[in-house]
Amino acid sequence: MHTLDNGLRVAVEPQPWNPGLSFTILVPVGATSDPEERLGAASMLETWLWKGAGPRGARAFADALDALGVRRQSGAGVEYTTFSASLLPEGFSAALELYADLLMRPHLPDDAFESVRALALQELAALEDQPPRKLLGRLRREAFASPHGQPVEGERETLERMTPDALREEYRRRYGAGGSVLAVSGGVDPDEVLRIAEKHLGAWSGDAPAPPAVRLTVPHRFHIDQETEQVQIGLFYKDVPPGHYDFYASRLAVAVLSGGMSSRLFTEVREKRGLVYAVSASPGSVKGFGYLTAYAGTMPERAQATLEVMEEEIERLAEGVTREELDRAKVGVRADLVLSGESSRARAGALARDLFILDRARSLEEVEAEVMDVTLERLNAFLAGRPYRDPWIGSLGTVEVGA
Amino acid sequence: MHTLDNGLRVAVEPQPWNPGLSFTILVPVGATSDPEERLGAASMLETWLWKGAGPRGARAFADALDALGVRRQSGAGVEYTTFSASLLPEGFSAALELYADLLMRPHLPDDAFESVRALALQELAALEDQPPRKLLGRLRREAFASPHGQPVEGERETLERMTPDALREEYRRRYGAGGSVLAVSGGVDPDEVLRIAEKHLGAWSGDAPAPPAVRLTVPHRFHIDQETEQVQIGLFYKDVPPGHYDFYASRLAVAVLSGGMSSRLFTEVREKRGLVYAVSASPGSVKGFGYLTAYAGTMPERAQATLEVMEEEIERLAEGVTREELDRAKVGVRADLVLSGESSRARAGALARDLFILDRARSLEEVEAEVMDVTLERLNAFLAGRPYRDPWIGSLGTVEVGA
Repeated sequence: MHTLDNGLRVAVEPQPWNPGLSFTILVPVGATSDPEERLGAASMLETWLWKGAGPRGARAFADALDALGVRRQSGAGVEYTTFSASLLPEGFSAALELYADLLMRPHLPDDAFESVRALALQELAALEDQPPRKLLGRLRREAFASPHGQPVEGERETLERMTPDALREEYRRRYGAGGSVLAVSGGVDPDEVLRIAEKHLGAWSGDAPAPPAVRLTVPHRFHIDQETEQVQIGLFYKDVPPGHYDFYASRLAVAVLSGGMSSRLFTEVREKRGLVYAVSASPGSVKGFGYLTAYAGTMPERAQATLEVMEEEIERLAEGVTREELDRAKVGVRADLVLSGESSRARAGALARDLFILDRARSLEEVEAEVMDVTLERLNAFLAGRPYRDPWIGSLGTVEVGA
Repeated sequence: MHTLDNGLRVAVEPQPWNPGLSFTILVPVGATSDPEERLGAASMLETWLWKGAGPRGARAFADALDALGVRRQSGAGVEYTTFSASLLPEGFSAALELYADLLMRPHLPDDAFESVRALALQELAALEDQPPRKLLGRLRREAFASPHGQPVEGERETLERMTPDALREEYRRRYGAGGSVLAVSGGVDPDEVLRIAEKHLGAWSGDAPAPPAVRLTVPHRFHIDQETEQVQIGLFYKDVPPGHYDFYASRLAVAVLSGGMSSRLFTEVREKRGLVYAVSASPGSVKGFGYLTAYAGTMPERAQATLEVMEEEIERLAEGVTREELDRAKVGVRADLVLSGESSRARAGALARDLFILDRARSLEEVEAEVMDVTLERLNAFLAGRPYRDPWIGSLGTVEVGA
């Protein structure tokens, strides 16, 4: 890991055997930093940035990236926007130069603005046809009192009110090297990566505004009445923040709950009772705060029973886990780590996220050692403190659960 | 590649650098071989198989797999059911023994049958809340006159009528070594893999029924009237079958159409006109037949224009592509190939599918050489024959397009 003079942090993980390469540029521009009257700005900006940059218009820019065989993924999220690319190593410098144009010298042209707005409105409409995504977005909105609950896709009113000038102001205020991250993984030499990063991104200036502090609402229930075939159920629990002593204990607890075929939620909710086709619990985090989300989609007549078994199983963690459960959770987490190490894209993404959330990048070996270090006594002492209780509970569909 | 005495074909691709391993067992049991009165049988069987096998009940079986850290994925599809596992190489023999129990010695217990049926009915209901998936399934159904159009998830009536005995009969009739495939990729020694495969799967007997011949309906339009926010649009075109001289030319044509930011559909439908958030064209194939599917989700008032531009762009391929487009398509396909080589799971899946569709497995190098071999002249000669015309066209939503 290395920090350039302008504050841009760079992490490199060489995979000498790998004939491919991936990089992720993380810019701390997300829904949390969208002003209330400009919700959706981060997301619209990300789309607008692709409409021409540096010496190239939109079409020439797209052609240049495709000529390098760049496979890109980009998008705004809750706390940040990421720009990821996978490609052959020989194209790295040329590709990073294009991304530097995009970040530092975007045209943000007036004549593309209406098409950017149309796309944002479409994305908002598409959400209505995706009940699980809609519920989980709303769950975040209900749980956070701070801007962490703001909708990434914005709202119809804020999107309709957005102007080119307002969005350009957001770009100037929020895009900058300070607080941003470049992570690279694959068949590369770290010194060469640093040299290329310095060359293309060394002149990037500006600092991102500091992220807001996390505040929560009081746990409560909500329901979205919608004509769907299935009822969607979501639960949100406070969890241990990244970097905390109990962080890896909490990860293993979630693995016992939802890590494999023998996990408690899968066994109790799906296998024994056939209540749902899909049930899961996933850890989530924003800077300085961790949470646990549990999700199920089920038939209206089974919704209440499904919710009850989910809550019961999560509460029951407080009674501790068995040695066999812990051993299975550990080997499962270890397999996940080793398998994630296969993918340069997964590693670049994880390194970038680490730098943003923890201010340092963890190797797979470090994470594995920390996980293996969690003893049964330590995990059960953590769970005995009843870390998972008092959830926010939401449902979407024709039946309100737990009312 | 190696064929065991019982007809099971085994392909191994060593990745000596890889600390992980993946394998895929492909069994030619899918919707195409479901009898008409037992639609959904392949899918229900796959779920039922996990309910205990060999010396273990369902719970002990799940525990044993999780104790090996196996990350599994399995499911029935149009032509086959796949059972995939990713894990640490030292667990390979023990994991394959468990999968051999599952395939050769499943309990298929009466007392789990109703929960299997409940899950199948839930999956069917969940489809109603996934408009793109629903439309594309129906598109396949409209285009194929042969059983290739049958719904993988079955129908309410056939699921409700299914009995344990009927499903056991399907298991006996359709599961067997002949026609099945084992593909392994990752940090393994090929000879060792063959020894272990012979040990655990050498005694597997039986042959799968031969796949039916492909027959199509006459191209036509259809509409599914449903209260959704967006209108879903799908097009289905005949394409070159795998193994055909023009196969790689057709792949490059699809890449020009939909491979990157500069691709024609992305540029014309999304970037220039802002008509849709998501638009794509994807090649598909069943044994002996290839097809091309194009998809878009858009607002009702833009649906007709979206369909028109999509059809126009696909038809326009007949005029040929430019050298620049071909060069970009080639470097993009090459990047995709190299990046897919990172993942043992992706490689095991691709090898298994190759063995089923082509009766041989292709290395990444072979595919790359074939792609690079396609000249502009050859591609444009292929396109001049107007391979993409007369589509089946479907829509789902509040507005019927092209009516």
